[in-house]
Amino acid sequence: MNIIEGGVTAPKGFTAAGAAGGIKKNNKKDIAIVCSEDTAVASGVFTTNLVKGHSLQVSMEHIKNGFARAIVINSGNANACVGESGYKDAKDMTALAAELLHCDSEDILVNSTGVIGSKLNMPNVRSGIRSAVNALSIDGSADAVEAIMTTDLLSKEIAVEIEIQGGKVRIGGIAKGSGMIHPNMATMIGIITTDANISRSLLDKALKHCVKTTFNRVSVDGDTSVCDSVFVLANGFADNDAIVKNDYEYSVFVDALMYVCTYLAKLIAKDGEGATKLIEVICDGAQDEADAYKVVSSIAKSPLVKTTIFGEDANWGRIITAAGYSGATFDPNLIDIHIGELLVCRNGAAVNFDENTAKEILKKKEITVRINLKKGNVSDRIWTCDLSYDYVKINGSYRS
Amino acid sequence: MNIIEGGVTAPKGFTAAGAAGGIKKNNKKDIAIVCSEDTAVASGVFTTNLVKGHSLQVSMEHIKNGFARAIVINSGNANACVGESGYKDAKDMTALAAELLHCDSEDILVNSTGVIGSKLNMPNVRSGIRSAVNALSIDGSADAVEAIMTTDLLSKEIAVEIEIQGGKVRIGGIAKGSGMIHPNMATMIGIITTDANISRSLLDKALKHCVKTTFNRVSVDGDTSVCDSVFVLANGFADNDAIVKNDYEYSVFVDALMYVCTYLAKLIAKDGEGATKLIEVICDGAQDEADAYKVVSSIAKSPLVKTTIFGEDANWGRIITAAGYSGATFDPNLIDIHIGELLVCRNGAAVNFDENTAKEILKKKEITVRINLKKGNVSDRIWTCDLSYDYVKINGSYRS
Repeated sequence: MNIIEGGVTAPKGFTAAGAAGGIKKNNKKDIAIVCSEDTAVASGVFTTNLVKGHSLQVSMEHIKNGFARAIVINSGNANACVGESGYKDAKDMTALAAELLHCDSEDILVNSTGVIGSKLNMPNVRSGIRSAVNALSIDGSADAVEAIMTTDLLSKEIAVEIEIQGGKVRIGGIAKGSGMIHPNMATMIGIITTDANISRSLLDKALKHCVKTTFNRVSVDGDTSVCDSVFVLANGFADNDAIVKNDYEYSVFVDALMYVCTYLAKLIAKDGEGATKLIEVICDGAQDEADAYKVVSSIAKSPLVKTTIFGEDANWGRIITAAGYSGATFDPNLIDIHIGELLVCRNGAAVNFDENTAKEILKKKEITVRINLKKGNVSDRIWTCDLSYDYVKINGSYRS
Repeated sequence: MNIIEGGVTAPKGFTAAGAAGGIKKNNKKDIAIVCSEDTAVASGVFTTNLVKGHSLQVSMEHIKNGFARAIVINSGNANACVGESGYKDAKDMTALAAELLHCDSEDILVNSTGVIGSKLNMPNVRSGIRSAVNALSIDGSADAVEAIMTTDLLSKEIAVEIEIQGGKVRIGGIAKGSGMIHPNMATMIGIITTDANISRSLLDKALKHCVKTTFNRVSVDGDTSVCDSVFVLANGFADNDAIVKNDYEYSVFVDALMYVCTYLAKLIAKDGEGATKLIEVICDGAQDEADAYKVVSSIAKSPLVKTTIFGEDANWGRIITAAGYSGATFDPNLIDIHIGELLVCRNGAAVNFDENTAKEILKKKEITVRINLKKGNVSDRIWTCDLSYDYVKINGSYRS
């Protein structure tokens, strides 16, 4: 597998663009389009929040037939909780894009991210869609990323190339997400493109498999938003023999897709609002998957754990505390905790560790917290970030 | 019912003291004792965290017989997760106090609050206990409060007087708690004293009833700690005919106890680490108790809701989002949300509200957030606080 340039336009037959329609202030890009030359098989994974954005609801309907030509996303406004007009506006967005791209509006997916509860300014949205369609290009991935960013600081883009039965296949991905991030899912949007020839059912299976351990294992603040989604479009422009069964070729595709999802998911945690550190929380020795997830999720959500890591303080008592109230079943007297490679708690009790070594570990930008319950042999892992002054600053005045 | 002075020593036959044993720095008080002249009936409610502090474990054993003479609490060290010596140290604390107070060590309750994973300095603890016993006085309640404070800024103390069958009965309470606060329970300790004549079973019933809607409805950061407890001691020094059945007199006692618990619980939320505002989150119209609790708990835990209120921004999208992922069942298209008296969302959609009115409401120190699910007729309520820069500051360097 090779890492290549180009993001979502690295796979053959895809173009992308970002344009400024005036939804965001200061002429910032706010409309992204990712488009396949021909209809692609498509799959998506969506927020589990009971409240769903209007645009997302339209996408959930449109993706049911398993095909899509393009994805249109606006940032600066979530198009959520605005009443019936929100659904109509999202429908209008797909109709306009379909008209400009000469396809059926059912083949347009749409999403919106930003403030909840404000109506879209549709003249701005329409103008942005027109500009974006005009700007579609095989070099447009970076512009599309820019147009879906809200509080993101890092641009999230990746592409890989693999060989499947002698044919080269490419997978590209872009994502946004910084706050309101927690399984399942978060204020995050991921768009993955591939030129692979693959059946819709296997594409769907591959996406769900990969999302489970990547995008659904990211927590910034424990908040699952109303617009979250990951889309994948496979247009079959590559030369590979079609992947139609769960065989070796499928596994090569899944490995590459997993790489793309992992890369983007970790970037989302690293770019968490106000984050200064990427934290990987690992639970080993759980009796079952549910318990392993409860423990990593509880630790990753704890503001006390997140602030202590921001402060570079090896206060592991907060880690064992978060495990203790997670709802998982274990014997507290068996727990081991490592911060990086440093053992700080053995059999549920303090270990005399070197504070200077701990400081060295905690100064790093990427920190692993590992807890072993010694009850079974199931593990899980989640990515999160620390909780800093800037998180408060960013979120204390988001609408302003 | 009258509010009276004196805290835990307002009820007849109780003394209290706070002393500095050297567990905390700068000669701050760190050992509190609350003592009844004679053995009292006693009850307690304890953390649900799987990990429990060693001192708390000893108290849970000692309270089983239903009686207690005194409670000894140290701050500055949680005596948790230090291995077998932690349990022995807690036992030694009760033995020393029993020796000095001439009672059985089983009649001494003990707890510790502070950093997890550090062994108690027992010479300091012993010296503190001796000083505190020497200082016991009917004016000692304020000193006892001071000695159990960790990051608390507000002193939490209350006492009330009621009449039961012509006899005056007093209930006093003190509490600590500021961070690691969430049901059930939190890094909080409550001590309630009363001179009421009441059977142990009714005392126990009254305490559990009151704690459920007061101390178990406070969330500062979603973290349930390992040392949390509320103790009540009733020494029967008042003149009332003994309360021995669930009658009118019992209900008068419960109302007063509820007042004391409510007062202290709200103070804990108001004094949440870094808090600038007390937030009351109310859910109406839930189909059952579980759903009502899920909704208020989810909103109260959301860092996005808490930062938006810190920033005095009426970003109610975060409130409906938190309800949406709470796990409660409802129709998002029916939801109403009020911030203070201001309707900001009706039937799941934005309402045109006056931003200046919203600003006025959000400038206040006490803010109510009310969500109506319109699905049933069950309500719940929780107290929390906003999330500020100071929360990060306090918790980024707690051990230093």
